[in-house]
Amino acid sequence: MHNRVKESFYKQGLMQTLGAELTAVEKGMVKISCPFTEALTQQNGYFHAGVATSIVDSACGYAALTLMPDDAAVLTVEFKVNFLKPARTSKLIALGKVLQSGKTLTVCEGYVYDSEEQQLIAKMTATMIAVRT
Amino acid sequence: MHNRVKESFYKQGLMQTLGAELTAVEKGMVKISCPFTEALTQQNGYFHAGVATSIVDSACGYAALTLMPDDAAVLTVEFKVNFLKPARTSKLIALGKVLQSGKTLTVCEGYVYDSEEQQLIAKMTATMIAVRT
Amino acid sequence: MHNRVKESFYKQGLMQTLGAELTAVEKGMVKISCPFTEALTQQNGYFHAGVATSIVDSACGYAALTLMPDDAAVLTVEFKVNFLKPARTSKLIALGKVLQSGKTLTVCEGYVYDSEEQQLIAKMTATMIAVRT
Amino acid sequence: MHNRVKESFYKQGLMQTLGAELTAVEKGMVKISCPFTEALTQQNGYFHAGVATSIVDSACGYAALTLMPDDAAVLTVEFKVNFLKPARTSKLIALGKVLQSGKTLTVCEGYVYDSEEQQLIAKMTATMIAVRT
Repeated sequence: MHNRVKESFYKQGLMQTLGAELTAVEKGMVKISCPFTEALTQQNGYFHAGVATSIVDSACGYAALTLMPDDAAVLTVEFKVNFLKPARTSKLIALGKVLQSGKTLTVCEGYVYDSEEQQLIAKMTATMIAVRT
Repeated sequence: MHNRVKESFYKQGLMQTLGAELTAVEKGMVKISCPFTEALTQQNGYFHAGVATSIVDSACGYAALTLMPDDAAVLTVEFKVNFLKPARTSKLIALGKVLQSGKTLTVCEGYVYDSEEQQLIAKMTATMIAVRT
Repeated sequence: MHNRVKESFYKQGLMQTLGAELTAVEKGMVKISCPFTEALTQQNGYFHAGVATSIVDSACGYAALTLMPDDAAVLTVEFKVNFLKPARTSKLIALGKVLQSGKTLTVCEGYVYDSEEQQLIAKMTATMIAVRT
Repeated sequence: MHNRVKESFYKQGLMQTLGAELTAVEKGMVKISCPFTEALTQQNGYFHAGVATSIVDSACGYAALTLMPDDAAVLTVEFKVNFLKPARTSKLIALGKVLQSGKTLTVCEGYVYDSEEQQLIAKMTATMIAVRT
């Protein structure tokens, strides 16, 4: 399971472009972190909302994948993100957790924290779909 | 108005990292495009959902900004995105449009199209807030 | 198609409780209206957000159903609603339209207008799923 | 605080029409339940998604209100709901909890459970706004 997620993660060109790292893979839970660089900012010099969203989308997708059959791939159907605090931190830590896993659809909750995992910066709810490869 | 958006856009490190370009700015409407590179992919080699989301979030935010007072800055409160088709194209074109502009909150509709602007790849609804600088 | 939607609509106890009426059924588009009564209010005496949401959810679901095979039933996977104006009107008019119809999932856009269809009161994006009966 | 919520709740005509009851009010948390009747159904005879949404929207709004200044009223800006299980139960129990409370905006998480509070039927994320009365 860990290898399956790891292999797919390193195929995501965007994760490498963002400098994101896969830091935990468990059944129904995946963590991805991303250190701050000026290449990832919005106009005020903090992390762009798109960075937080990209890593927590990947975290939710892979969390869903850990509970899917071996021949399934995962796609994002939709997500919603609320931005709770300015992303002013040295590292974003994204946590994706499965809320409900079904045969076709999986619903995940995603959380983006600051480097200390103290402040909740953004909250995602995502719907993922299993597609047969 | 055009300069205000342009200036802010070029301060967004992420837009440069993605290779995104600001291609239109009108009252209540902004367009941003992003050519495909392997640096922007998910595991199947198409554009990552996070790229589409990042550029359409910026497009919606700037569309909102075009209708805000001069001393206001814009922040994303929340958004929801539905992914309608695989982002398999040579260029993503994101369009942000103001649906309703209020004193505090602005609601925008965002659209991400393929390079021909024929296929709707993703659809966003976003809530933006004006903050005094 | 019209009969199939009509039959199902009149089985929805809630639509009768709200006093809602099915006013148009076309391929990919359904309209439901609901006249104001004090039984449908929130604390300020306007329509409760839940009424607007209930009728536009049904409108979106039935719009999706018009494009599904005869043996399919429709369920709501998720929706998001933005409330744009206070629902201070003598009648709510909800319009559900299919944005994209797939084999399994259908994405709809929903609009709730005032009695004159001049003011957009609420905007929904909904994901519907076809289930075999 | 409890009285303020209670008073407002009993002004909501819709809550009475649905037969909903306010069952708990704490700082940042409100619970509303709603027993099943045929007046609240969708076409399969279960609770309509609109009922679950209506009570959890009210629960989230009032949870937000418990943390607002005395002269503030609360309005729903937007919400998103995922429907996780068919609402086939003798009573819906909606729980609204404040995730983040700000001067202008409050973000809430809403949960709709079955009568035993065992099954999570629906999950809401809502943005509320404080308006001065």
